[in-house]
Amino acid sequence: MIYDGIHMSDHLVDSVLMLGQSNMAGRGDMGQVKPIRNPLCYMLRMGRWQPMCEPVNPDRGIFEGRFRSGISLAASFADAYAKHFGSAVGLIPCADGGTYLHQWMPGELLYDHAVMQTRLAMRTSKLKAILWHQGESDCLSDETVAAYRENFIRMITQLRKDLGAEDVPVILGELPQKIGENWKTGGREQQLNAILRQLAAEVPNCAIASSKELTMKPDGAHFDSPACREFGKRYFEQYLLLK
Amino acid sequence: MIYDGIHMSDHLVDSVLMLGQSNMAGRGDMGQVKPIRNPLCYMLRMGRWQPMCEPVNPDRGIFEGRFRSGISLAASFADAYAKHFGSAVGLIPCADGGTYLHQWMPGELLYDHAVMQTRLAMRTSKLKAILWHQGESDCLSDETVAAYRENFIRMITQLRKDLGAEDVPVILGELPQKIGENWKTGGREQQLNAILRQLAAEVPNCAIASSKELTMKPDGAHFDSPACREFGKRYFEQYLLLK
Repeated sequence: MIYDGIHMSDHLVDSVLMLGQSNMAGRGDMGQVKPIRNPLCYMLRMGRWQPMCEPVNPDRGIFEGRFRSGISLAASFADAYAKHFGSAVGLIPCADGGTYLHQWMPGELLYDHAVMQTRLAMRTSKLKAILWHQGESDCLSDETVAAYRENFIRMITQLRKDLGAEDVPVILGELPQKIGENWKTGGREQQLNAILRQLAAEVPNCAIASSKELTMKPDGAHFDSPACREFGKRYFEQYLLLK
Repeated sequence: MIYDGIHMSDHLVDSVLMLGQSNMAGRGDMGQVKPIRNPLCYMLRMGRWQPMCEPVNPDRGIFEGRFRSGISLAASFADAYAKHFGSAVGLIPCADGGTYLHQWMPGELLYDHAVMQTRLAMRTSKLKAILWHQGESDCLSDETVAAYRENFIRMITQLRKDLGAEDVPVILGELPQKIGENWKTGGREQQLNAILRQLAAEVPNCAIASSKELTMKPDGAHFDSPACREFGKRYFEQYLLLK
């Protein structure tokens, strides 16, 4: 098991599921913040726990492509979690950039992928949190904004059921306060943020992290790396309030 | 679907499963070879097809760690495949460095992970090949070498059955002709290569790519990037012989 130089974590860890689109997947530039090096933090790879290093969520290329995998909020969440509880924690990266909520409904590829990964992870971990950041894509039309609340409730209820995780806290995060005009959301992120706050109040054991004053990349849609670090801490603060 | 700048491939692609340890996962240094840019080549990410870019198999960190994910043989295999058949092809990366064959047996995490990923992939693709490169870890003792043949047959037979892929070609590859002495394999790679060649003759619809004259990284265990490019072409030559 140590042939490749990696000591696997054989003991049980706490695990945290990452769901959503690009701002959960992470588009912060590598090198803009210091790497987080915490030997208690892991990430799921091929069903096994590996030492956490970013990019954690490899939904896109690292060295090529317009939107590259990079820094996300999950690493600073995991770091805060490990420091607070003094226990090992593993991230289950299942976020996928550019996706709509309808692609996350039960039976869809992204949903089934997440369930499958989490079930594998749960063989060697205890699921402790579900992190969700999604909705930018749904800001592209009034119809998708209008359908968000009902679809989210249906999705998250079924997900908790499928994972036997009815009591596992779900932490949402606000979309950027303002998405650049080139993305043509027409300011619907304000409506969707109101819906997300409503969901946090309505869904059992659910909270929402604020995106206030978080800085954006020049592209106008993605949190920059320092913002991701801060956002992960805010997610963890909300997590603690639910615990 | 194009919010994040990525156009998904909605049509069916041919798919290729990557199994094994570090020399399938890929440890060739990035930058030592030209990137392969072929719009017909994809890789599975979160159950969906994304444009192929290396590292394809994210079993380890990219920017940190002793053994980093890098160039593997799979990209030049996919490139050769797409060029030969003129069809889109997607890689399903399931290799994991440093692993023993016993970790790949049915019911183990790596096996179940690979089945799960491939089943997701097969919703939008037709599985056309299974690529296997593994065995370095098993060279560490006489017992694991002795058990290899029987365990491999049991594993691959069950895998084909679980995937409904009884007729899908399986391509093996020789281990490095000589692994560095620091790895303490005691030259058992020669015995294991003989077993792999025997398996290629014995297992239905199976072939083996030679590792002769492939160049190694200074670490003595991993093929370098130019060798990976060449090895992928050899895998594809063997694939064509079976078709």
